Amino acid sequence: MYAGLAYDLIYNSLTPAERKTIEDGAFKPEVDFVTKDLKTWFDLIHNHGVWACAGVGIVGIATGNKDYVDMALYGTEKNGRSGFIAQLNGLFSPDGYYTEGPYYVRYAILPYYIFAGALNNARPELKIFQQRNSILKKALEAALQQTNIDGAFLPVNDAIKEKDFTSNEIVTAINIAWNVYGKDTGLLAVAAKQGTVLLNRGGASIAAELAMARTGSKYYPYKTVEYVDGANGDEGGISFLRVGKGEDLTSLTFKYASHGLSHGHYDRLGMFLFDKGNEVFQDYGSVRFVGVEQKYGGRYLPENKLYAAQTIAHSTIVADEKSHFDGKEDAAEKFHGEKFFSSASNPAVQVVSAKEKNAYADIDLHRTLYLLQLPRGKRLVVDLFHVISPNQHQYDLPFQYNGQIINTSFKYKAATTSQTTLGKKNGYQFLWKEAEAELKDTLAQFTFLNGKTYYTLSSLIDGDAQLFFTRSGANDPNFNLRREPSYIIRKNGKSQTFANVIEIHGKFDPVREFSSNAYPTVKNIRLIYNDEKYTVAEVQLGRDTLTIAQSNNESGTNVKHAVTVAGKTYQWSGPFTVLLNNKVLK
Amino acid sequence: MYAGLAYDLIYNSLTPAERKTIEDGAFKPEVDFVTKDLKTWFDLIHNHGVWACAGVGIVGIATGNKDYVDMALYGTEKNGRSGFIAQLNGLFSPDGYYTEGPYYVRYAILPYYIFAGALNNARPELKIFQQRNSILKKALEAALQQTNIDGAFLPVNDAIKEKDFTSNEIVTAINIAWNVYGKDTGLLAVAAKQGTVLLNRGGASIAAELAMARTGSKYYPYKTVEYVDGANGDEGGISFLRVGKGEDLTSLTFKYASHGLSHGHYDRLGMFLFDKGNEVFQDYGSVRFVGVEQKYGGRYLPENKLYAAQTIAHSTIVADEKSHFDGKEDAAEKFHGEKFFSSASNPAVQVVSAKEKNAYADIDLHRTLYLLQLPRGKRLVVDLFHVISPNQHQYDLPFQYNGQIINTSFKYKAATTSQTTLGKKNGYQFLWKEAEAELKDTLAQFTFLNGKTYYTLSSLIDGDAQLFFTRSGANDPNFNLRREPSYIIRKNGKSQTFANVIEIHGKFDPVREFSSNAYPTVKNIRLIYNDEKYTVAEVQLGRDTLTIAQSNNESGTNVKHAVTVAGKTYQWSGPFTVLLNNKVLK
Repeated sequence: MYAGLAYDLIYNSLTPAERKTIEDGAFKPEVDFVTKDLKTWFDLIHNHGVWACAGVGIVGIATGNKDYVDMALYGTEKNGRSGFIAQLNGLFSPDGYYTEGPYYVRYAILPYYIFAGALNNARPELKIFQQRNSILKKALEAALQQTNIDGAFLPVNDAIKEKDFTSNEIVTAINIAWNVYGKDTGLLAVAAKQGTVLLNRGGASIAAELAMARTGSKYYPYKTVEYVDGANGDEGGISFLRVGKGEDLTSLTFKYASHGLSHGHYDRLGMFLFDKGNEVFQDYGSVRFVGVEQKYGGRYLPENKLYAAQTIAHSTIVADEKSHFDGKEDAAEKFHGEKFFSSASNPAVQVVSAKEKNAYADIDLHRTLYLLQLPRGKRLVVDLFHVISPNQHQYDLPFQYNGQIINTSFKYKAATTSQTTLGKKNGYQFLWKEAEAELKDTLAQFTFLNGKTYYTLSSLIDGDAQLFFTRSGANDPNFNLRREPSYIIRKNGKSQTFANVIEIHGKFDPVREFSSNAYPTVKNIRLIYNDEKYTVAEVQLGRDTLTIAQSNNESGTNVKHAVTVAGKTYQWSGPFTVLLNNKVLK
Repeated sequence: MYAGLAYDLIYNSLTPAERKTIEDGAFKPEVDFVTKDLKTWFDLIHNHGVWACAGVGIVGIATGNKDYVDMALYGTEKNGRSGFIAQLNGLFSPDGYYTEGPYYVRYAILPYYIFAGALNNARPELKIFQQRNSILKKALEAALQQTNIDGAFLPVNDAIKEKDFTSNEIVTAINIAWNVYGKDTGLLAVAAKQGTVLLNRGGASIAAELAMARTGSKYYPYKTVEYVDGANGDEGGISFLRVGKGEDLTSLTFKYASHGLSHGHYDRLGMFLFDKGNEVFQDYGSVRFVGVEQKYGGRYLPENKLYAAQTIAHSTIVADEKSHFDGKEDAAEKFHGEKFFSSASNPAVQVVSAKEKNAYADIDLHRTLYLLQLPRGKRLVVDLFHVISPNQHQYDLPFQYNGQIINTSFKYKAATTSQTTLGKKNGYQFLWKEAEAELKDTLAQFTFLNGKTYYTLSSLIDGDAQLFFTRSGANDPNFNLRREPSYIIRKNGKSQTFANVIEIHGKFDPVREFSSNAYPTVKNIRLIYNDEKYTVAEVQLGRDTLTIAQSNNESGTNVKHAVTVAGKTYQWSGPFTVLLNNKVLK
């Protein structure tokens, strides 16, 4: 690809003989190799195929070889079943989500944009940038929406957390997009942080715009977005619920997508939470030190599959200490999560509910995450996680909290003079057991500090449960893992509901030496009604009562529901309602 | 103090009767209480006494009570043996170092500046700001020099690492200093980060200066500074060796001061290193969550004395798993380290050598730290640490590295499925033993990554040694400690020399996915001569040879030395010489 671009630049200064030498001697063997010897690979609808098509296509444009360009566009058979157009159609979901996740769309977007930019000049009649409702615009916007306020790509699947939108691939995409899709103040905020432009029309225009130094927003215009997965948009999806502005952004990621190819993790219905730019409930990301030769040449380390991809490294249910799909990629690839319902039209109540019925043979998973903005500024996540099974299982729900433990409402037994692992396989062997507790019929509260904010996880413990504080780093003789903590709620039984509330509260100011609102306001969590049809949860918040009623099997937006609990009837239409002191929360 | 300031503001609006009510009814009982009932406490030369004198003095000025002001200035007996002037003379060293360290000078400086500011108006003839060669100016400058480039106070003794120079005490001091000592562009950089001023002359002038928005330096003008400790400057000291500018500042702290009163740590000849704003070899600081009620009301936690103050939590020698002075404050207070020599006039070779003869009954400690700027930008710290004893001991030299382990030159045995503590007391009980190695006659190299820079510690292992990788967090049932790593070199014997080289090298760029100079250039370390009189160390750096020759018992700057090793004679004058390929390094 790059050689084709370079050849184009010097074409006019070459003699016909020189051109023949290069075209026949260099390009032809290469093109033949990838389109004939590697024909099957070239015709795959795959990430690598995009690079191959972009290369052959750009060489075709640079050398005036229509045959090359046609193969690049429509596959070696030129029937459109493969090639670049098919890749545009097949590798993104209809709204621009890339199944491997944002870390990898960053990588894949470069050949798409470069070849499309070349086609836009050479074959304007293709209107390549308008292809599939401007899928390349959607892909770029989706990539940017899937970043943290510091520009780092959110750690979905294999991801290096330090990678951000200043990477050259995104610089290139933005500079081309600016030219073909028009000016966009959102992109300008990103370009300002990139601090570099390409020497093309878009780049020059961005530089001129930035030089005018109008005070634009410091941040990309992050908003709540929900993406479907799969080429046809029918393979589940991923939601990013957001509330707040600027530095005060809260972002809740909820993943119910397909596996994500070879870079996927076994994290169906997993969540992670960023707040004020900090990863508060984290996703480990990948175990890889890219560009560090001493760490296995910078490649993925064995612990990536053995730990980071396993379910226990995420914040979702693990049954019987086995990962989803038993950690088998081919099994995981066959299925995807399914959104049950979602709503983001009321900024005070954003919610996504999704189900996963295939991660375990006899267990259905159904999780609903509510991101609530209460009056007077408080934000809560209410997490209702049903596991439904006719059989007895052990269920672990880990929360990958990130911070310093400040307080717990319960007593636990800490490992003081010796420490052992939580388990023996499926990622458990990498976790040191720092402390454990046995609880029964209570509210378990755990407060930690991350940055200058307090976070409390309040958990309904109905019946018996065990709690664990763990830390990664066991069975890690090469020190490949970071030492990260986790808080795990374990229950045994058939069907179970895990009801948890994450409360963002207070402020810690070590310079001025005070804390405000350092204690949680959640006083109690009750499931006042809970069966296969409905769940009604009541959360006591100081003197306020928050009530969430949801349908568990009927997601129609106009369907009316009524549940009577102890003589009181809750009525609502659509899949859910959220009440504060008996009034609909708005 | 604050009530006196407030009274002064409303004085003119009060009737004589109202004044009498306040002065007789409120101030007099308070002043009588602290100057009569608490006479002994009021007359102490101590931090708390400064607050007491400032309070009584300011009330005296506000009420026109000469008696109060005189007691505040000269003590209850008005003989000058106590009171504010005596405190100015007794609580700082002659060059403005405050024995408790920078975190606490930040606290103490407020009443000094407020009372001095009031005296400057009320009794200008005292020339209080010129007292003791402008000691208050020196104290403020020393406080600021003892910060990191992000403004955080360097963690000497008990220190909350988040505390920085935006604290209100430093705002007040700078705003007053600006008025009495004149404009100072260094202070302006600090004021800009503070983002707030007092409503006084200095504050208004600073605000006006900042509003003119001339592009000043982003950073306080950090430089190499060395402070003596003790009121007379004869109780050891502390050195901050610095090289580099702006964000690229390397700061090496070497402490050979007195104990530091009740907030001191048992860390004689301890070091820590900041580079590019990051703490690369850290000091734990204090175990305290200030302002966090759940953590023992925000007070110092038990682990502060039990772990953070202990020698093993620092980067200096621990003999026989016992802290310096057996961890006893009264014993530690009796002695101080002694500077043997230092030199900072050659920016390529900065060095401090200090001795401590009382930390252990039969062991002398002598450490010399060289901060070297080599041609082509590389920076090294060469650390020659002699322990001298006629008796057999176990010596541990910990390095509190901060980062991700990337590589070691040696094999070690990691704790994989279970983990135990390194020891049972004196801080050792808080360390999990993550890995250990047995080495003999070799060079042990250990590379870690902190931020985007590689750091390698290269250690001469002459004879037998053990190495440990540890992590804090054992015996910590309340999760009061951060989980921090340490690398410990253990030797057994009588006198020993620990020769270590810290190399700052390379760059890790996870966005662009490359590393440069990720491997150390140190190939070998040899002590080609080493006895009670001289040490000659040779460090092989790729194809270059660095030679350091020092006198161990003669620090005179004009004394000539000669050492012959294998027929080659090294000659120099003054306590040391540093050669690169046989030429003096400049």
